[in-house]
Amino acid sequence: MLLLDTIDRKAVDQTPVWIMRQAGHYLPEYRSIREKHDFLSICRTPELATEVTLQPIRRYQFDAAILFSDMLVLPEAMGLQLEYNDDLGPQVTPAIRRETDIKNLQTEGLGEKLRYVSQAVNMIRASLSKDIALIGFSGSPFTLASYMIEGRASKNFRMVKRVLYRKPEMLHQLLEVMTTAVVQFLRLQIQAGVQVVQLFDSWAGLLPPHLYDEFSASYQGKVISQLADTGVPVILYGRGPMHIIESLKSYKPAVLGVDWQADMVKARTIAGSKIVLQGNLDPACLYASAETIRKEVGRLLKIFKGQGGHIFNLGQGILPDVNPDMVHVLVDEVREQSMRGDD
Amino acid sequence: MLLLDTIDRKAVDQTPVWIMRQAGHYLPEYRSIREKHDFLSICRTPELATEVTLQPIRRYQFDAAILFSDMLVLPEAMGLQLEYNDDLGPQVTPAIRRETDIKNLQTEGLGEKLRYVSQAVNMIRASLSKDIALIGFSGSPFTLASYMIEGRASKNFRMVKRVLYRKPEMLHQLLEVMTTAVVQFLRLQIQAGVQVVQLFDSWAGLLPPHLYDEFSASYQGKVISQLADTGVPVILYGRGPMHIIESLKSYKPAVLGVDWQADMVKARTIAGSKIVLQGNLDPACLYASAETIRKEVGRLLKIFKGQGGHIFNLGQGILPDVNPDMVHVLVDEVREQSMRGDD
Repeated sequence: MLLLDTIDRKAVDQTPVWIMRQAGHYLPEYRSIREKHDFLSICRTPELATEVTLQPIRRYQFDAAILFSDMLVLPEAMGLQLEYNDDLGPQVTPAIRRETDIKNLQTEGLGEKLRYVSQAVNMIRASLSKDIALIGFSGSPFTLASYMIEGRASKNFRMVKRVLYRKPEMLHQLLEVMTTAVVQFLRLQIQAGVQVVQLFDSWAGLLPPHLYDEFSASYQGKVISQLADTGVPVILYGRGPMHIIESLKSYKPAVLGVDWQADMVKARTIAGSKIVLQGNLDPACLYASAETIRKEVGRLLKIFKGQGGHIFNLGQGILPDVNPDMVHVLVDEVREQSMRGDD
Repeated sequence: MLLLDTIDRKAVDQTPVWIMRQAGHYLPEYRSIREKHDFLSICRTPELATEVTLQPIRRYQFDAAILFSDMLVLPEAMGLQLEYNDDLGPQVTPAIRRETDIKNLQTEGLGEKLRYVSQAVNMIRASLSKDIALIGFSGSPFTLASYMIEGRASKNFRMVKRVLYRKPEMLHQLLEVMTTAVVQFLRLQIQAGVQVVQLFDSWAGLLPPHLYDEFSASYQGKVISQLADTGVPVILYGRGPMHIIESLKSYKPAVLGVDWQADMVKARTIAGSKIVLQGNLDPACLYASAETIRKEVGRLLKIFKGQGGHIFNLGQGILPDVNPDMVHVLVDEVREQSMRGDD
């Protein structure tokens, strides 16, 4: 399995490739399912989740499938209400504002409430070719806590920032609870058959550099150590500047996901040769001509030439208005150039 | 003048302080003017622009006033329509989409069209105490071009990214035109009396690290060299990750503004001792208690202890819902701690 072999630093003959949000709006077959079903119904119906997870695999034969789900199904299973609104995005109610709100969160019986996730993992794994890895995921404790405090995605996450600066001990309390829940959520995915898990720290950029370790990286570290007995490799992916990579690497994840705003050459130096790096093409590069895509793929592959330890990916999720043909160009280029060992 | 002495690396007995967007919504006296006049009318009426520029100076005796205006009055003077909408923010029409759109931009007669800016600078300088510096500003060529191509602020600036990857030569053409215009805009402010100018590269974060120099930093470098004969120091401020600081420092600005997402300790190392640094408290830190603000001010001042070369500022504009009393706390702490030389 190319993805796992790359993570294990075995000799491989090409660079594995998958794309964050690969099951998404840019695919006509995905849009036709979304015309009939809303986003959360797809997440909650194992047959539909399986179908959309497999769509990009059929088209591009990516080296990994990633479970189609939403990170906010976890807070929902803990007792909050979750709604998706096409304009506002996700809304979580009631938002966490007081310590009693944290005490009301349920961390028991998550396996039962999230059975539809385990079922989807089972079904996907059963339909997926043996040489393609299945990746499970969760939001990081900090990113989930941010959604839960703010109630929804927002420009500045001012409520989260207020809590961070005015009631840091309350934020730590919530982060502890979410760490426990994230570990359970990932364990149930692992038991159902995922072979790799990724933590998405989508709101990592809300924290100034000197607070990132205290409020986010350290909790991701706890998740890694609490999953150590499973032997399943963990990918840590924080969206935002370079200092995120620096903080996360000290928790020795198997893989670090690199945002497109970070410099892959520096990431390589900072992470050292033991940690595999994933990323980090600018998603907007898929708007370019085939020639520009070829060049940009070459630029990235060159950084890892003769050393390996690279999983090709975008540095952030694929944009909804990308031409699916350009994804073919991208995947072909990654495979051809990495097999030929182009300069 | 404390601000200019600091920039000139003269011995000073305290750290100068001002705040980006210091004339803004958090001030009740600003809101009461905004109740009667819309944002652009204030920009276009020298008496009103003068009044709001001076409001925060009266309250806090900041070491610098910054001209109250908007970076988009420049594209407006070049022939585009500018509107402000409370929900969508600024809108520039028609958006630049073709090479002919660039040819239609006017770079002649800007002094005449922007006379209200010169008049405001004159009036502010006349009312301002001699020991307070007056800062003029412009958007960077890249940030202005981004607004002009997109037509308005947006989450991903997809039109800009399309142009960047599909028609880079067209983007360069627009950047050349905007560089010429920015130099003229800053010259007219300098002639009217500003003593320092700041370039705001607010959308610096749109560019991946390996493209930042080509599409943004190099044009800011041109602005610096074309203003060299004025002797007026230039502050370059790019919003976003650390690599922006690294690119900008090679153009030897007098001052580099540091975003709150960047690490000031590293910025100090990267910039070297000749370049003065400005920033970079997280704006949300003003939500905190006086004690937390004191600690955070101390953390920043310590980095420059015994070396100087620091202008205290937030790392981004002040948030509209901050309590104005906490700005007093901040300013007092910066002055007391830097005078005492606290550890």
